[in-house]
Amino acid sequence: MGSNFGINPMKEESIEFIKSGGVTAPRGFLAAGVSCGIKPRKQNDLALVVSQQLADVAAVFTQNRVKAAPVLVSMKRAAKGKARAVVINSGNANACTGQRGIEDAEQMAAVTASLLGCSPDEVYVCSTGRIGVYLPMKKIIKGIEKACKALNVEGYSDAAEAIMTTDTVPKQAALKVKIEDKEIFIGGMAKGAGMISPKLATTLGVITTDALLSPEYLNWVLRCCVQETFNRISVDGETSTNDTILLFSNGMAKNTIISSENPHKGIFKNALRLVMDRLARAVLEDGEGVTKVVEILVQGAASDKEAEVVARAVGNSLLVKCSWNGEDPNWGRILCAIGYSGADVDQSKIDLFYSGTQVVSSGVKTEVKINRLRKIVKMPMFSILIDLHKGEGQYRFLSTDLSERYVRINKGE
Amino acid sequence: MGSNFGINPMKEESIEFIKSGGVTAPRGFLAAGVSCGIKPRKQNDLALVVSQQLADVAAVFTQNRVKAAPVLVSMKRAAKGKARAVVINSGNANACTGQRGIEDAEQMAAVTASLLGCSPDEVYVCSTGRIGVYLPMKKIIKGIEKACKALNVEGYSDAAEAIMTTDTVPKQAALKVKIEDKEIFIGGMAKGAGMISPKLATTLGVITTDALLSPEYLNWVLRCCVQETFNRISVDGETSTNDTILLFSNGMAKNTIISSENPHKGIFKNALRLVMDRLARAVLEDGEGVTKVVEILVQGAASDKEAEVVARAVGNSLLVKCSWNGEDPNWGRILCAIGYSGADVDQSKIDLFYSGTQVVSSGVKTEVKINRLRKIVKMPMFSILIDLHKGEGQYRFLSTDLSERYVRINKGE
Repeated sequence: MGSNFGINPMKEESIEFIKSGGVTAPRGFLAAGVSCGIKPRKQNDLALVVSQQLADVAAVFTQNRVKAAPVLVSMKRAAKGKARAVVINSGNANACTGQRGIEDAEQMAAVTASLLGCSPDEVYVCSTGRIGVYLPMKKIIKGIEKACKALNVEGYSDAAEAIMTTDTVPKQAALKVKIEDKEIFIGGMAKGAGMISPKLATTLGVITTDALLSPEYLNWVLRCCVQETFNRISVDGETSTNDTILLFSNGMAKNTIISSENPHKGIFKNALRLVMDRLARAVLEDGEGVTKVVEILVQGAASDKEAEVVARAVGNSLLVKCSWNGEDPNWGRILCAIGYSGADVDQSKIDLFYSGTQVVSSGVKTEVKINRLRKIVKMPMFSILIDLHKGEGQYRFLSTDLSERYVRINKGE
Repeated sequence: MGSNFGINPMKEESIEFIKSGGVTAPRGFLAAGVSCGIKPRKQNDLALVVSQQLADVAAVFTQNRVKAAPVLVSMKRAAKGKARAVVINSGNANACTGQRGIEDAEQMAAVTASLLGCSPDEVYVCSTGRIGVYLPMKKIIKGIEKACKALNVEGYSDAAEAIMTTDTVPKQAALKVKIEDKEIFIGGMAKGAGMISPKLATTLGVITTDALLSPEYLNWVLRCCVQETFNRISVDGETSTNDTILLFSNGMAKNTIISSENPHKGIFKNALRLVMDRLARAVLEDGEGVTKVVEILVQGAASDKEAEVVARAVGNSLLVKCSWNGEDPNWGRILCAIGYSGADVDQSKIDLFYSGTQVVSSGVKTEVKINRLRKIVKMPMFSILIDLHKGEGQYRFLSTDLSERYVRINKGE
């Protein structure tokens, strides 16, 4: 099965992943993560990522019609397309908090801006955590002051920790890519771990690069890579009120500007997608109660859209997810989900494979031994290939199992 | 809150629920439930319901595009509109079993028909259980022989037990209703308890009546009552491959024929809906791992369809269902689900009530104390009223919590 959504690192482009350095791997970025007392036990809960010079910024936000205050505030910034920083708190989503929530988010930007010496509309704001609770602004303001003092090129891991909610590990990625004679760095951080089923945006993610890009291309390439990575994962079919992904580019690599006319633009796009793919996979692997990551590839659909409908129905089926958790190769539930997906399928044409082993041929079970399938579904990662034999449409989707632990995590307050 | 989906028993119609007697409460029906060895531990796993004279039958089937063999076989019967019996096995769904599955289902009908002395196309066939396994036909045939010998007016509970899968209790209802000077009986049985999110049909249900109805009205009234009862419940958002509901009417009450012209038709419809509502609620209450039944009423939507979209998004949200299981009045997750439902909502207009207590006003939390909400969500049944303040559309939907036990039940083979 193709990991990385079929993206190959392509050695000829001399892409090199960097172990240390997430959002501060690119030149000119500083970060900090501090504890300001929103979360219990002095965990980091306030993050700051700052570009030393004004950066071009592309942003994608949740498609949820109920948008958190920081999303509404950040959407206003997006029109400008330029910013210096993003300030993020965890432990409280500042969602469904009305006018007071908006004022609080604006104040987070204003306090950060005054300490950095920039304009408030050059500071993005993100929040993640429980919905419907007002922010403890005194703590937040103290936290922002603390974070501004702590800003450092080594602050990337503290920042990645400070945006965690039920995540068990911070999620970071960074790489170096050579375009012509210039070394370009791309770094990023993201959070999970529940309410993960992004639509056009997801969760919280901050990506930084020192590459110089045209604003048009910056926007296009972020949307494109989001579609191919974050928008194809699901832990629980829930689209959050707070999903935001920001891509900062400060041009400090001094490369020839990357625009839609640049012949090397594909190298940058591939590199960006690799970073985002790593982050998206890390979100899934650390999903609440997750023990399996399953890649679902649907092909032979009438259209890519129909393939997507089928892949999402299978990947979001509770019964399919429970069977994965129990390491039960219950292909019948997968066929059932295909059937109710809404796609116009002919059951007598469906083929189904588990990691390359055919289980269903023309809608009926093959002679494959159940023990062979059991071995496959015991793996922490396996693939399901569904061929509808109708047309050329295809879609790739990553999902997870559903465990008792997921329920346990989400039933408490 | 209105239980019974707002249906009132209406005493003036002299409806009287009957404690004993499910499908055999109406005159002229016999039933049996026997063990034939599909399920372990000699549990009943084969049911037979027979009308002593040829009955008019209305049927609704699953909308899943992957249909089990017995559904395909029964759909052929439905065109005829008349039948004598239905034979049902549990423990094996006979789904995704190709041509052999169809032949097996046809044989079940043929064996039953020859023992009852009727035509094979006068016998409906239903199966429920694991998908993708061939039926053990020798056991089934012996079971049908045993069931035909056991047929009895007292056999209703054995039959209701024989269609159970993960159900913990059999689901039956029966009532007597007076129309003009005639007493009419309606009885029924149904099964749960997972893969419950019917679309135009659900699960397995057999309803019997000795009323005389015109075939047109019989078909219309079944569809209408299914829409108002079984199609408004969900345990897990899964639409089964085997869903079937049959309504047998044998006319033995000798009433004036009930058709769309009959001024008393509403009395029959109301009585039928009451029986089906009881069965649908019983399916939910006994849903896999269910500890709460929650009624979701959406009003003020642009259309009934939009209200339905919102109600289903809330009722099928994993995070909302987990919070119900944990008795956590987490209204933020409900607002989140409303937001991603796809409905074009304005968050600043949303009102939300828990069993009559307002929690959200114009998208923002009211002053209500959390302890008051906690008391409500501790109840085994409560209601969520969502007002979108857009128009006149409304929809009522019943859902359940999601428990660790649901996952435990469904992870095993």
